[in-house]
Amino acid sequence: MTRHLCRALVCVLGAAPATILAADTGTSIYGFSAGAVATELALERSFDQALQAEDLRAWMQRMASQPNQVGSPHDHDNAEYMLGLFRSWGWNAEIETFYVLYPTPKEVLLELVAPTHYRAKLREPPVAGDRTSSITKDVLPPYNIYGADGDVTGKLVYVNYGMPDDYKELARRGVSVTGNIVIVRYGNGWRGLKPKLAYEHGAIGCIIYSDPRDDGYAAGDPYPDGAGRPSQGVQRGSVEDMTLYSGDPLTPGVGATRDATRLSRAEAKTILKIPVLPISYGDAQPLMRALTGPRAPAPWRGSLPVTYHLGPGPATVHLRIESDWSQKPVYDVIARLQGSEAPDEWAIRGNHHDGWVFGAADPLSGNVVLMAEMKAMGSLAAQGWHPRRTLIYASWDGEEAGLLGSTEWAETHADQLKRHAVAYVNTDGNGRGFLEAGGSHALEHMVMEVGHGVSDPETRVDVVARARARDLVAGNAEGATDSAKYIAGQLRKGGDLPLRALGSGSDYTPFLQHLGISALNFGYGDSEPSGFYHSLYDSYDHYVRIIDPDFAYGVVLAHTTGHVMLRLANSELVPLHFGEFATTVSRYVEEIEKLADSMRERSLETDRLINEHAYELASSRHDPVGPPTHEAPVPYLNFAPLKNAVAELAKSARACDEAYAKALSEPDRLTPARLAEINALLIASEQQLLAARGLPGRPWYQHLVYAPGRHTGYAVKTLPGVREAVEERQFAEATEYVGVTAAAFDAYRAQIDRIATALRQ
Amino acid sequence: MTRHLCRALVCVLGAAPATILAADTGTSIYGFSAGAVATELALERSFDQALQAEDLRAWMQRMASQPNQVGSPHDHDNAEYMLGLFRSWGWNAEIETFYVLYPTPKEVLLELVAPTHYRAKLREPPVAGDRTSSITKDVLPPYNIYGADGDVTGKLVYVNYGMPDDYKELARRGVSVTGNIVIVRYGNGWRGLKPKLAYEHGAIGCIIYSDPRDDGYAAGDPYPDGAGRPSQGVQRGSVEDMTLYSGDPLTPGVGATRDATRLSRAEAKTILKIPVLPISYGDAQPLMRALTGPRAPAPWRGSLPVTYHLGPGPATVHLRIESDWSQKPVYDVIARLQGSEAPDEWAIRGNHHDGWVFGAADPLSGNVVLMAEMKAMGSLAAQGWHPRRTLIYASWDGEEAGLLGSTEWAETHADQLKRHAVAYVNTDGNGRGFLEAGGSHALEHMVMEVGHGVSDPETRVDVVARARARDLVAGNAEGATDSAKYIAGQLRKGGDLPLRALGSGSDYTPFLQHLGISALNFGYGDSEPSGFYHSLYDSYDHYVRIIDPDFAYGVVLAHTTGHVMLRLANSELVPLHFGEFATTVSRYVEEIEKLADSMRERSLETDRLINEHAYELASSRHDPVGPPTHEAPVPYLNFAPLKNAVAELAKSARACDEAYAKALSEPDRLTPARLAEINALLIASEQQLLAARGLPGRPWYQHLVYAPGRHTGYAVKTLPGVREAVEERQFAEATEYVGVTAAAFDAYRAQIDRIATALRQ
Repeated sequence: MTRHLCRALVCVLGAAPATILAADTGTSIYGFSAGAVATELALERSFDQALQAEDLRAWMQRMASQPNQVGSPHDHDNAEYMLGLFRSWGWNAEIETFYVLYPTPKEVLLELVAPTHYRAKLREPPVAGDRTSSITKDVLPPYNIYGADGDVTGKLVYVNYGMPDDYKELARRGVSVTGNIVIVRYGNGWRGLKPKLAYEHGAIGCIIYSDPRDDGYAAGDPYPDGAGRPSQGVQRGSVEDMTLYSGDPLTPGVGATRDATRLSRAEAKTILKIPVLPISYGDAQPLMRALTGPRAPAPWRGSLPVTYHLGPGPATVHLRIESDWSQKPVYDVIARLQGSEAPDEWAIRGNHHDGWVFGAADPLSGNVVLMAEMKAMGSLAAQGWHPRRTLIYASWDGEEAGLLGSTEWAETHADQLKRHAVAYVNTDGNGRGFLEAGGSHALEHMVMEVGHGVSDPETRVDVVARARARDLVAGNAEGATDSAKYIAGQLRKGGDLPLRALGSGSDYTPFLQHLGISALNFGYGDSEPSGFYHSLYDSYDHYVRIIDPDFAYGVVLAHTTGHVMLRLANSELVPLHFGEFATTVSRYVEEIEKLADSMRERSLETDRLINEHAYELASSRHDPVGPPTHEAPVPYLNFAPLKNAVAELAKSARACDEAYAKALSEPDRLTPARLAEINALLIASEQQLLAARGLPGRPWYQHLVYAPGRHTGYAVKTLPGVREAVEERQFAEATEYVGVTAAAFDAYRAQIDRIATALRQ
Repeated sequence: MTRHLCRALVCVLGAAPATILAADTGTSIYGFSAGAVATELALERSFDQALQAEDLRAWMQRMASQPNQVGSPHDHDNAEYMLGLFRSWGWNAEIETFYVLYPTPKEVLLELVAPTHYRAKLREPPVAGDRTSSITKDVLPPYNIYGADGDVTGKLVYVNYGMPDDYKELARRGVSVTGNIVIVRYGNGWRGLKPKLAYEHGAIGCIIYSDPRDDGYAAGDPYPDGAGRPSQGVQRGSVEDMTLYSGDPLTPGVGATRDATRLSRAEAKTILKIPVLPISYGDAQPLMRALTGPRAPAPWRGSLPVTYHLGPGPATVHLRIESDWSQKPVYDVIARLQGSEAPDEWAIRGNHHDGWVFGAADPLSGNVVLMAEMKAMGSLAAQGWHPRRTLIYASWDGEEAGLLGSTEWAETHADQLKRHAVAYVNTDGNGRGFLEAGGSHALEHMVMEVGHGVSDPETRVDVVARARARDLVAGNAEGATDSAKYIAGQLRKGGDLPLRALGSGSDYTPFLQHLGISALNFGYGDSEPSGFYHSLYDSYDHYVRIIDPDFAYGVVLAHTTGHVMLRLANSELVPLHFGEFATTVSRYVEEIEKLADSMRERSLETDRLINEHAYELASSRHDPVGPPTHEAPVPYLNFAPLKNAVAELAKSARACDEAYAKALSEPDRLTPARLAEINALLIASEQQLLAARGLPGRPWYQHLVYAPGRHTGYAVKTLPGVREAVEERQFAEATEYVGVTAAAFDAYRAQIDRIATALRQ
């Protein structure tokens, strides 16, 4: 395609550029004027050539050689090691230290005390061929950080995944958890919600286990034969209530510097009130086998070779947890490469470096990619290249416990970040297979353009084409979900791969959802089970045996995030394209309207069935299930303000995207002063989607489009103020947040209009 | 409701009488004139009072005290025992004996010979508290009757449920069964298709096991604690290819009398060509654990505590089966109670008496209900009652092996049955909970009217109301299937509970699908697992512990089938109502049209994805899956002949149902001669739905509306000539059977018109 034709197509297609353009990265790059394209492409080629898989291997092997959780000697050592490397590569680097509440276990005991006795092993034995699995120095026993201390004995109740609907099912079977200890399986909702909801339902303790159905032998051969969890493998993890806020529980909203004002532990709402302990399925089996009472509903049954019962009891367990609640340092390694033309516009990139034990896959497989990018960029800089904008690369500490390092840094530098940050680009470990990309939808177009230029090592097509093929196949599979069919349908209509919306579970959260900075998150992966996750077996030996033996996908991730960073750093205009955002939020509004309609219809029928005693009649005497309780009826809600706002937004987005293309087609008119003005407006655009009041009940979360779910945790809720209120039948709140969200869309639209005006000057 | 109002409503509602009428059995009974209602209701009350649960218990305990499979001494003894009872109750009874090929195992061996050695136990140990489980005399080892003899050694391949789609999935993973031995799990398709399809794909042997997910510990506590299958419990069963024809394999289409002309064994198409053996999950586990190769797809994974792999091998098994292929007698006990006014109109009722071992639930729990009906009717007859029509009650032998007793009897008396049989009413064991009723849809109205008059002992509502509540609740459940939603929607529109269409698996098949006699099948059940099914543990002790301790549902089934029989026997007009038939087949046509449309759409996309290499791109290197193969494209088919035929049929049905109601409102005009004429036409109506040529590839099956699926076995295919041709992409055949089926509908419609004319005279 000639450059001329390409430029014409940009104008014609304006609001929704066809993939045909993006695929042909040889002739245009979004955000760059035609004259700047060749230089950028040459730079990216040089960048690619500077990447070496063997670097990734060596760094991972070294950094995963000892336990590296917060507070461990090797955690500090890794930070110092990176600091030295970053400086040696020409970056202006420093360690920024924060001081956080970080409990570690002193004593942990779990035993079945009736009807028989079993003392849980609670430790992960060495595995043949996994060299670090025999290390014990500095290895903490498996635990859930920010659970309460306690010494409790109670009857056991099995609560499935421990999500809100599970408690409704328990109630229909006459089972209460009050005064009892729950046993809950990992999965299908964030781990921290499990003990929180158990506590809210009256439980006095919580045991979380990894069912073999979800990531054990049923999912794949147990390690070392395959990717399945071995019988004594345990998933550690944080249970801090990060649906309220992330970071140090004692310093919400402000940086946990040495002399910050702190809450008391009792005041910190994100610390749990009951003891909670993660265990293996080897330890869970004797407990589950000792339960009687109603049979678990069919979807609750995992793959232990027992009949799943709900209890309560006769299984009775004794759980004791005592922790060291001392403060510990987190070491964020922050490096800068100064921008030549727009030093006050910052493109930020991060991955954390702390693991639960050795942390080879999580987080180091992503952290070594970040390092590889830095080394390559350093070598380009040594050859005379300077980014237009300032690059900031961060290796965070304390992510596992609750995004501690990133949150405290973001809170400390909040004002500057809001003024200067173009975007935050996150990774958090890496696998192999398919591109998984999520983030702010105004960046979707840029991301897919990058992806079309990155080659997949297994198939030699570009990584977007591969992920697209997967989604098309999934949408045509027997029994495909409506959502899979929808995505495939959009792809067939010529749409590009959609960015996933971001919930939480990694370091983008403080940037995106607290500060309103456009954010992205990347990784490669497939549907292989993650039986190593947060266990002793997340090791270098495991990584090169099971996941990415030659670090081919490490290099591919570096291509992806590296090109994204280079374009964020070098493009004349910040590469936002608003059409995808408008399309996406329009779909979210439709979804919520449909949700309300189907809830209304189903609720009416449920009420009718309750009144007709149909549930009692439908219940089998072998397996009695009572009726659900009446719930608040679903009124017709006024979604018009949202729909009007989105309709206006779509018009403005189209106009702005056209103006953007036109402005870039006349680069001579883009003086430094105009570029600064336009880019400042672009940088501030995502922040228009914030509400200062925050989301209902959680003021720290201010983004009105993306949030982790109140009752899903990591998983995203889009338009959360409205969607969650509808889901939870808070209809007055739903109406209120229709207004709040519509106002944010109006503000965003107004900002887009300002950008368009500035572009047209 | 007054009689006058009721009669008016019958006229107004004509084609689709509202449940309001049916529920009020005090004022009208379908098929009876108003003046005859009180007598019939009084009779039914007397019948109900004559039933005694303790009779059922005693008969079951006696008949299940020893193994009672065909050829066993106790099988003959049970026949003689019933003969004596039936005669003592005033019935004209005899034993009609047929002589069938009935192989029994002489030697059975299964061993894992590589990579380790394991010899399968192949026997079911005694269970505490189950008295007959320690009996060994006359107990045959678990086997699949009509599998081939053989001595084979081969690598093992796991093929999931062994259905056609499973072989497509195997092919996509590069796994062939040719020359190997398959291991397949029970469920999701009739057992006989599993070895048949394995053979057609080149396997040399077949092992069928009961996965604990399907009816073992995952489904319920293993017996004796609950209804789950214990680890060494085995499901026996026939693998005769009854999708071609039922009955003695050597005498298709004719009765297996002593001197019938017989095929040779080699000529009998319903005998399998490879050895097949059923085993327990206790025996399956070492075999499954020894498989490697590709991981089984997620839906294929059961609940054994192993990672499910496909093989082939390294697990290698040696299977030897040698049988006694001698002829054995089957003893049908046939009893008659002569009709007083229409002795040549026969209402027939049957249940079989042979079991696989003790057969308490299957079949005796149904057989004792049949006996209870006979005893009660006998006592009514002793008090002077005579049925208008002749009642024929049959206790069949040899059902388990392939509906031997019923098929041979039906084939022997085919001509008479076609002339005289009003309907055949079947049961085949009984459980508890919910009414399950299937059969000819012209009988739906009568059945539901009966059901509205039978009280459920657990809930005290009528049994239709209870089943209706279950269907309404299922249709409103989270994630309800489209089919469940459809049924609930119809119920909410005022429709009555639909009769299920009949496939096969019990003795109605020769009557309905070979001879075109209207048929019904009844039982009560719930979703409790059937871990006892076809095992040693289907015992009296099991039945009263797990299923129906006080025989309350035995009595309720007797109410249901007894009232059906009394109404079939006593109604002035045979109680057919054609509106429901028309509605039902209209839906079947719609379903098939939608099926073709969705197949077409999905096939086009599949082809496109194959051509784009999307499947290769979508495949994970951890778990490679190749593309499917191109299949014949789906043309637009001409369903117009069927739709026109159904539209005409619906009109005629409405008119006929109205004429029927009107004729009964003027009973004085219904002279014996007119009744005989009309009833003869009604009796012959279902036969209009037969095609003499039969279904494609299986001439024995002549019914064009109901058949067991070629590739589902027991499960029904409605409008099978068309539906199966579409499903199997035999589009010329589909078009041909659109014509054949439409012609049958035309013939049926013409018969309805003749009935209407006769009713109006």
